[in-house]
Amino acid sequence: MNSNLAYFSKQDELNDHLISFSERKIFVIADENTFLKCFVKLPSLKNVPILVLAPGEEIKSLISCELIWDFLQENNADRKSLLINIGGGVITDLGGFAASLYQRGIDFIHIPTSLLAMVDAAIGSKTGIDFKHLKNYIGNFTPAKNILICPDFLTTLPREEWTNGWSEAIKHALIADRELLNKIYEQIILAPQSISLELLQRSCKIKIDLVEIDPYEEGKRKALNFGHTIGHALESFFLKIGKPIPHGLAIAAGMIMESDISQLKNNGFTDFQKVQDVLNFFPRIEYKIEDCGEIAQLTLKDKKNQNGVINFTTLNAIGQFKIDTSVEIPLIEQVLVNYCKNE
Amino acid sequence: MNSNLAYFSKQDELNDHLISFSERKIFVIADENTFLKCFVKLPSLKNVPILVLAPGEEIKSLISCELIWDFLQENNADRKSLLINIGGGVITDLGGFAASLYQRGIDFIHIPTSLLAMVDAAIGSKTGIDFKHLKNYIGNFTPAKNILICPDFLTTLPREEWTNGWSEAIKHALIADRELLNKIYEQIILAPQSISLELLQRSCKIKIDLVEIDPYEEGKRKALNFGHTIGHALESFFLKIGKPIPHGLAIAAGMIMESDISQLKNNGFTDFQKVQDVLNFFPRIEYKIEDCGEIAQLTLKDKKNQNGVINFTTLNAIGQFKIDTSVEIPLIEQVLVNYCKNE
Repeated sequence: MNSNLAYFSKQDELNDHLISFSERKIFVIADENTFLKCFVKLPSLKNVPILVLAPGEEIKSLISCELIWDFLQENNADRKSLLINIGGGVITDLGGFAASLYQRGIDFIHIPTSLLAMVDAAIGSKTGIDFKHLKNYIGNFTPAKNILICPDFLTTLPREEWTNGWSEAIKHALIADRELLNKIYEQIILAPQSISLELLQRSCKIKIDLVEIDPYEEGKRKALNFGHTIGHALESFFLKIGKPIPHGLAIAAGMIMESDISQLKNNGFTDFQKVQDVLNFFPRIEYKIEDCGEIAQLTLKDKKNQNGVINFTTLNAIGQFKIDTSVEIPLIEQVLVNYCKNE
Repeated sequence: MNSNLAYFSKQDELNDHLISFSERKIFVIADENTFLKCFVKLPSLKNVPILVLAPGEEIKSLISCELIWDFLQENNADRKSLLINIGGGVITDLGGFAASLYQRGIDFIHIPTSLLAMVDAAIGSKTGIDFKHLKNYIGNFTPAKNILICPDFLTTLPREEWTNGWSEAIKHALIADRELLNKIYEQIILAPQSISLELLQRSCKIKIDLVEIDPYEEGKRKALNFGHTIGHALESFFLKIGKPIPHGLAIAAGMIMESDISQLKNNGFTDFQKVQDVLNFFPRIEYKIEDCGEIAQLTLKDKKNQNGVINFTTLNAIGQFKIDTSVEIPLIEQVLVNYCKNE
């Protein structure tokens, strides 16, 4: 499903590669940042119609889809046209979704420009938009024709965006590759705003392998939800009180707490301290002990839950995951309290 | 892809069959007519949450999708829930589309209640909505989990809806089964508001077989576009001048004209008179000779065209189609003039 992934160590190489698509009618979407910092570095696209959207999660909406469909239709895009999405996860999720539905689906290519999009959002065929503040509630599974990854674009990435990306890269290491975790730990201590092509490829490969064996998240792909059930509940809680927190920090906190669940549920898990050591590199999330009950309840809203049962991915050890661990609300509340007390 | 189709000669049998889904969380959409005439005949669904929409093509919109997604979300539909679409092609196209995107896709079942939906719209995995007056411009290919066909529902079908359905059934016969054409002709002469289960099944099977060998309309499935290129241009023309015409009549006229193209382009086609005999059972479309140029130009807007080339499905004989016949605008204009003069 994802043998369509290619790496380019330099922007020039990516630019040259894009020339191979020039026989098709090409359209581009980007946001204001990626237009200025990335699109302009790809002169082979200079005569292509482009739609530039505002940056931010707010554009993952039906209104943006209508803008994209209008843009395609007014420029006479047909079923053989190609949409290139240049941006972070918001642009790749939105652009993939809009393309998958235009005239019942046209090809699209992702050029992810953030670490998060490179190691996570742009790979794995999930597309989607938010609906009434519910993240990725409307979407589908549609593979990109190609995913073109060039870490050159990361040189202008803001610090908080690095955090979001590292968080997912660490998740991949935690569920599948202990040695990679050590390498990432060294990297984020030494130079947290830089990544080697090797680390990038190893991180992507963990996701790609899981997606290939389980494209529709019916089994092993659920491993990728590690840290995300509590992470999403934290995001919802802070969104509700008007103080949104960065996704990467929410997931980092979620991974600490779901590691705590792992040690409390699975007798064998003894790596909790190591997980904390790595993840405490990130700023911690601050909330009050009396909020833990409410945050725990929010896990019930997770769209991965069925019939009110909360299924977590836990760890047997670093590098070994276990899916479908059902966890009761009191235990979730307990690990929220433990985190809050920094225990 | 469509072995998920089942026929029920009586409503009671269909009702009994629906009980087999009762372990799942079920939701229903219908329009005001199909709610009153069909849903109420299925008591096994009586406690199921239902969303009733206004009847008519206007509801094939993003706004209706939002209504459906709200309805599902407010009733706690999860990824294992099931949406049952009870209605004509508008409801099955819209319901399939909305279900295919809710939480990245939930299962849906179609219960088509019009002849058109039974022989055409509900089978073949196409879902979609209209976008800025462009029919089915936004959509995807998602197979229904089941399609449950019960001709009992047709007893309350209005006459113009029979015309729409017969038109597509005749199309299937014209492209694939000469004997079926004769049987349909007998039926519409004798009892145009009635169809046997045998005729229904034979007509459906022609579409199912084409969809199975070419689900994404890259080759032979294009046969099903016979009559539709000029048919859609006629619909667009009359919509534009504020006098919309029924789909079935537009397609019937389109099939006459595309048969005319078949005789003018393919030396072998000698069945034009026979096609006219059958299709003249339907009321003819009336337009002026001076409008023919404008109608011909509208075929260029067809979403099946690429790079401005108009590809038609033509007939070599009744029961034998030929796809990808490129046709020039002057010839399209000529057959429009011929039809107008009833030649």
